[in-house]
Amino acid sequence: MSMKNLEKSENTVWHAPLVGRAEREARLGHKSGVLWFTGLSGSGKSTIAHAVERRLADAGRLTYVFDGDNVRHGLCADLGFSEADRHENLRRIGEMVRLFIDAGILCLTAFISPFRADREALRARIGEQDFIEIHCRCSLETCIARDVKGLYRRALAGEIPEFTGVSSPYEVPERPDLALDTDRLSVDACVEEVLALLRAKQAQAG
Amino acid sequence: MSMKNLEKSENTVWHAPLVGRAEREARLGHKSGVLWFTGLSGSGKSTIAHAVERRLADAGRLTYVFDGDNVRHGLCADLGFSEADRHENLRRIGEMVRLFIDAGILCLTAFISPFRADREALRARIGEQDFIEIHCRCSLETCIARDVKGLYRRALAGEIPEFTGVSSPYEVPERPDLALDTDRLSVDACVEEVLALLRAKQAQAG
Repeated sequence: MSMKNLEKSENTVWHAPLVGRAEREARLGHKSGVLWFTGLSGSGKSTIAHAVERRLADAGRLTYVFDGDNVRHGLCADLGFSEADRHENLRRIGEMVRLFIDAGILCLTAFISPFRADREALRARIGEQDFIEIHCRCSLETCIARDVKGLYRRALAGEIPEFTGVSSPYEVPERPDLALDTDRLSVDACVEEVLALLRAKQAQAG
Repeated sequence: MSMKNLEKSENTVWHAPLVGRAEREARLGHKSGVLWFTGLSGSGKSTIAHAVERRLADAGRLTYVFDGDNVRHGLCADLGFSEADRHENLRRIGEMVRLFIDAGILCLTAFISPFRADREALRARIGEQDFIEIHCRCSLETCIARDVKGLYRRALAGEIPEFTGVSSPYEVPERPDLALDTDRLSVDACVEEVLALLRAKQAQAG
């Protein structure tokens, strides 16, 4: 079969079926999808996502956590924190996550994702079946008191414009798949709740 | 352990080691990396990439093919084909591929990637060890005669600005890891060459 006659030969090539999501999920032995964590800076998204990932990996799942560390310095390095840039940041992450899901990977994301419209767009684009929204519900006071990265101090001093909770809104999820009261629950308790939800969702999906 | 004392408890949480690339590769039983196909439109990049993927998947590898179909309508839907947009298109794809490699997946990309500077930037960013450049070397005449998607006809009629090979340059790779003469070799022969190269590279890497 010569490449010169690609038009004619393509049918032959594609007799070997393309590799698709179902085949990858079967090879991995589990379903893909995304656990989308949302909440204020300091509400525990990244800590819980990584702790959940550890448990999932121990159970043989192939997982990946997306957070500011691996996205803001790479794929979205050209974006800032204006409202427009935040929309574009989440749009790109969503499109990347779609391909990771297609690749068979169980994804976890840890981004503030402050706007309801963005989260709803992500749910619609990624698909209801594959999108699990988890709200890390923590009072602003606790996040400010915690201030792990020292960002609230700087934001309250006016050094960081459009900082969520201080100078930019956080729109609380109205119907998240799960809300975790992270200022009262332990990390372990949060992890158990997430794992129970995932089991229930994936059992439901068959 | 309360989330209120996150600063103190983090050490405890992270006693469970983070999931990283080495662990994912061990779980999958193979190395990750990227086979980066480059060449004119119609030179066989996508056909060969998918045929290679089929063989790799049959051998138990977890793979993913990136091409115009799954990137241009999603992650890069906001970009056109100007030189600036082409740079940004490849930059984003490269950043996404880095995360896929980190996730343990053996990636294949099928983009024209016409500019040497972009390909060198990708090699530097992704890392010499993980980046295998494969040139689908095919004469412009053959690609025009083939014209699988009817794009050359439209480009030659002036209907598509900045079309590689017609109104925008293709900079031939000087030292690709492999050059495939796709106007003379069969798809099967190309696939065998790619698989042999991959075996050699990954054996070399240990």
